Amino acid sequence: MSFYPSYLLCLCLGVLCVVFVSFWNAQWRGGFAWDGTGKQFNWHPVFMVTGLVVLYGNAAVLYRVPLTWGQNKTPWKLVHAGTLLLALILSVLGLCAVFDFHNAQNTPNVYSLHSWIGICTVALFTSQWVVGFAAFLLPWSPVELRKLIKPTHVWMGAIILVLSIISCISGINEKLFFSLKGNVNGTQPYAKLPSEALFANSLGVLIVVFGLVVLYILSNQGWQRPEPNHDGEGYRPLQHEES
Amino acid sequence: MSFYPSYLLCLCLGVLCVVFVSFWNAQWRGGFAWDGTGKQFNWHPVFMVTGLVVLYGNAAVLYRVPLTWGQNKTPWKLVHAGTLLLALILSVLGLCAVFDFHNAQNTPNVYSLHSWIGICTVALFTSQWVVGFAAFLLPWSPVELRKLIKPTHVWMGAIILVLSIISCISGINEKLFFSLKGNVNGTQPYAKLPSEALFANSLGVLIVVFGLVVLYILSNQGWQRPEPNHDGEGYRPLQHEES
Repeated sequence: MSFYPSYLLCLCLGVLCVVFVSFWNAQWRGGFAWDGTGKQFNWHPVFMVTGLVVLYGNAAVLYRVPLTWGQNKTPWKLVHAGTLLLALILSVLGLCAVFDFHNAQNTPNVYSLHSWIGICTVALFTSQWVVGFAAFLLPWSPVELRKLIKPTHVWMGAIILVLSIISCISGINEKLFFSLKGNVNGTQPYAKLPSEALFANSLGVLIVVFGLVVLYILSNQGWQRPEPNHDGEGYRPLQHEES
Repeated sequence: MSFYPSYLLCLCLGVLCVVFVSFWNAQWRGGFAWDGTGKQFNWHPVFMVTGLVVLYGNAAVLYRVPLTWGQNKTPWKLVHAGTLLLALILSVLGLCAVFDFHNAQNTPNVYSLHSWIGICTVALFTSQWVVGFAAFLLPWSPVELRKLIKPTHVWMGAIILVLSIISCISGINEKLFFSLKGNVNGTQPYAKLPSEALFANSLGVLIVVFGLVVLYILSNQGWQRPEPNHDGEGYRPLQHEES
């Protein structure tokens, strides 16, 4: 398969994930507010899926787009870092939504396995962003350091996406068991697969397929941005990069 | 880091995962039986974690062990395929345990997101094993086919492990919400993090870390088994391989 069909698939799946997670919470979970009720919780899945999965995945594959290869890398590094910063801010807002909701309801925080993995994912993502910024965008970062860090940065980038998907799937699964009990608010139980369950399960499948497409694009060595051959050229400090 | 510390970590984490999942179900979930009760369900996590994660991950990194490099590849291919067949049998037994339990309790099957992802994982694993057996072990499989399939086989191998881990984490999370309700059998609720919850959450963390170590070993190109340079040598049919 050539690059652009995969990339188009990645873009479409990303849009579908955002549409599905928003529609699920608007249609069946009562919509959105920032008031300590379940409506505030509803921002949690929307922000996490949009930030930690869709924006994150798109930022990860950015350098693979051949259209960007003939150009100065610096603006694309800024787009990469900027998109990931937006992803990070959304993730933190997503965490605030659930912490505020729990506190307002006197529910303990960070007890489930979902929350343990999710918190570690956001912590790793934060470290990855800070180290990436310091190593690849600060002009005084030495070339040797960039060369040393880049393989780890790329590998950790893929691993954080895997952890995000683990967090999302366990979270959606947990939320459906919580919401679809069959004895409150006239909902049908999850086990009877009402339309909400089918829809949110499909969201989970979309998230997994999106993640696999991103990992597929990242793993294809022929799709990596060709870096100049002489030592360190590809890792030059920000202000030294040429077009 | 050199190979053997990573490999030792992989082996130790694998053993810990099996010990933890068995102890959790023996100590807090009532132990094991094959009688349609919750004791039959308890085989499900034990078989899935042992088969689909631990045996699977160990089989995946087998060719990376440098001790095996100077030797004929054929016996190691048989160990790889044999370990994965055992992993596959355990996974199918693990599915039988939960289907039997659901049928005995008149609970529907395959409705949760956990089960959707889990079933797809086992189906993909089965296809991967059959295609791998046909392409790499049957003597009449042409060299060109082996060369064509190998990158996909290696990539799919890693992806199936990722899907296994997604399934395990969502499953353990779901099981803890089911079991620790705080109103039955005198259990404390999950939100109060009783010792069972701490222990099973730790099992989840161990599974994730085991998976990351396996993916780390697989991703290190310097740790790949060196294959002879001339075309197709590394993909020779079974009976043609030399020591």
